[in-house]
Amino acid sequence: MDQSVLPQAALYLIPVQLSDVELHAVLPQANILLVSHIKHFIVENVRSARRFLKKCDRTIDIDSLTFYELNRHTKPQDLPPMLKPLIAGQPMGVISEAGCPAVADPGADIVAIAQQKGLKVIPLVGPSSIIMGLMGSGFNGQSFAFVGYLPIDAAQRSRKFKEMEQRIMRENQTQIFIETPYRNNALAAEICKSMPQHIKLCIATDITGPNERIVTRGVKQWLNHLPDLNKVPTIFLLYK
Amino acid sequence: MDQSVLPQAALYLIPVQLSDVELHAVLPQANILLVSHIKHFIVENVRSARRFLKKCDRTIDIDSLTFYELNRHTKPQDLPPMLKPLIAGQPMGVISEAGCPAVADPGADIVAIAQQKGLKVIPLVGPSSIIMGLMGSGFNGQSFAFVGYLPIDAAQRSRKFKEMEQRIMRENQTQIFIETPYRNNALAAEICKSMPQHIKLCIATDITGPNERIVTRGVKQWLNHLPDLNKVPTIFLLYK
Repeated sequence: MDQSVLPQAALYLIPVQLSDVELHAVLPQANILLVSHIKHFIVENVRSARRFLKKCDRTIDIDSLTFYELNRHTKPQDLPPMLKPLIAGQPMGVISEAGCPAVADPGADIVAIAQQKGLKVIPLVGPSSIIMGLMGSGFNGQSFAFVGYLPIDAAQRSRKFKEMEQRIMRENQTQIFIETPYRNNALAAEICKSMPQHIKLCIATDITGPNERIVTRGVKQWLNHLPDLNKVPTIFLLYK
Repeated sequence: MDQSVLPQAALYLIPVQLSDVELHAVLPQANILLVSHIKHFIVENVRSARRFLKKCDRTIDIDSLTFYELNRHTKPQDLPPMLKPLIAGQPMGVISEAGCPAVADPGADIVAIAQQKGLKVIPLVGPSSIIMGLMGSGFNGQSFAFVGYLPIDAAQRSRKFKEMEQRIMRENQTQIFIETPYRNNALAAEICKSMPQHIKLCIATDITGPNERIVTRGVKQWLNHLPDLNKVPTIFLLYK
């Protein structure tokens, strides 16, 4: 066996695929080999984590593994005890629902605790819709902000649009955000109507998937030509 | 041969390793197989691109490939003609010096032109020090900004520190930045002195490399305990 894949006593942040593709299309071979050597996993969803691990290693003995669920329902006081195996010298893995753990999911909380305790944290390479959307957009990658979900309240939302426009114009900062998938179409239409014509919108859908499309157009060019984004994983980017 | 690796007529954004590691540690197998099928590359540096391609495929015939150099010395009018092979139906690749092309390098300019011309752009998965630093920091990944290099001018720099602190406190936005490697030590010391004690600094050095260390501490905890970062690739992250 390749010695280099033997894990250290560290918290490994293990990305998963964004879409239903072969693992070798989006994950380094080293990640796939590594997971077979980890017995303790902190996961956003046990069922999908099991499915991912089976995909990495068909011979894996799932029943020999321990899973600690960490999602929005987890109580803060339940987090520190999850790290006991790592403190005892065992490698642990963090797996989220999609993409890179600890970026836009509760995984960051357990990493913060590991850092406080002086434990070693090792992020692995994997697909990030934020970075891949940015790469494909042609927008400024020397300065960009990911702002997560936009506010739902109309007044706050309108202020956020104004602020994003200002940061694009004054700071040359690309603005990146997401929306609950069933509201994607409404958001895309709203952007095209409310943003001035010198603003460009990149719509990046189904990144790494069979229907991937990463397309940048002026907001007024998009108007009346928007694709159907309903329930399709999409990331939105704005720049000038 | 695996049909799935045959490239389409698209501009492939091909990440390279950040450090001197085996490719399978940081790149999906599909990327490594794909490059052998591309004949035209837009690259930041021809020598290092050749070395990367040889590493992907030892049998590659380098002399049969065409390289178009794109870096800070390239004139804007020389960019559009680079895409001729793609317009004629041939796949093309973009390769930068390190990490993901078109994020903090001139590759974004050629992607912007490809988007204007309605050409297909396909980003591939690879190591990004921004995302990996963020994952490992334990900081907020629901809202973060990469601001590139900080200003050199003392007054502008001090304003930038103030602005970053405000965005951390008011917007819960993680701030990420880099420095010219020989100035890393000076920057780290400056942060620890000038930032208030409720601010945390994550220093992520040699990401994916043999001396990788991603460590988050309060700025006052770091003071007098800073590692030597001189000429070591490092990314800095701030949060509360």
